[in-house]
Amino acid sequence: MTDENTSGIFGRGEENTAYAKYFIGQSYLNVLSREGVVIANVTFEPGCRNNWHVHNADKGGGQILLCTSGRGWYQQWGKPAQVLRPGDVVNIPTGVKHWHGAAGDSWFSHLAVEVPGENLSNQWLEPVSDEAYRALT
Amino acid sequence: MTDENTSGIFGRGEENTAYAKYFIGQSYLNVLSREGVVIANVTFEPGCRNNWHVHNADKGGGQILLCTSGRGWYQQWGKPAQVLRPGDVVNIPTGVKHWHGAAGDSWFSHLAVEVPGENLSNQWLEPVSDEAYRALT
Repeated sequence: MTDENTSGIFGRGEENTAYAKYFIGQSYLNVLSREGVVIANVTFEPGCRNNWHVHNADKGGGQILLCTSGRGWYQQWGKPAQVLRPGDVVNIPTGVKHWHGAAGDSWFSHLAVEVPGENLSNQWLEPVSDEAYRALT
Repeated sequence: MTDENTSGIFGRGEENTAYAKYFIGQSYLNVLSREGVVIANVTFEPGCRNNWHVHNADKGGGQILLCTSGRGWYQQWGKPAQVLRPGDVVNIPTGVKHWHGAAGDSWFSHLAVEVPGENLSNQWLEPVSDEAYRALT
């Protein structure tokens, strides 16, 4: 597949090396806006997902996902994983433990919109195990 | 064309009646996020454009456009209009007089990301005349 086919209209960008230690599999990052609101298109190869993590902030913060291509997963701690498809929107509040990533048999891309706030930080936690990931249907 | 073909993956939504008085032609609004960061998919029928306007704020503010479908125009006051295509990103700072809309022969859709700030307001000004609009190439 071409880059466009696997990453949607906002492009694949560069290998996501800065966050690779918090991901299983290869992801890509195309930063679209650095001012006002930080927005990036994130692309996951099939099977790729990030570790469980939490967005923290003293005020505001969190992340909004706008799905642009392929098929993926989003899961909040303690809830069933939900399938994500192009056009789906996920509002991730601060303090909520979660992960997201591609389906096992599909590339997946979403815009990640960083909600501004005060003292923003990410808390990276354990990986999504192969056993748990493969059990998703 | 179907709704999906004319509005891209984020959908057409409702007729944009609230802002119709500031537009020439029919536009549509699909609000995707009301919390954290306000995000909507805006769709313009061929020939539709908004009036010249300015986003004001005491702090922060402005708007980021992420083009999702079709072909359109963005123009800052005193500068040539620029063509917009899917994947293009426009960062509109506060205080800048501008307009955006569809090309004359194409539907056009963009995500509008409202940059948070203090005392946000929009200042709506004169329409883009038929003469000026038709002269765009």
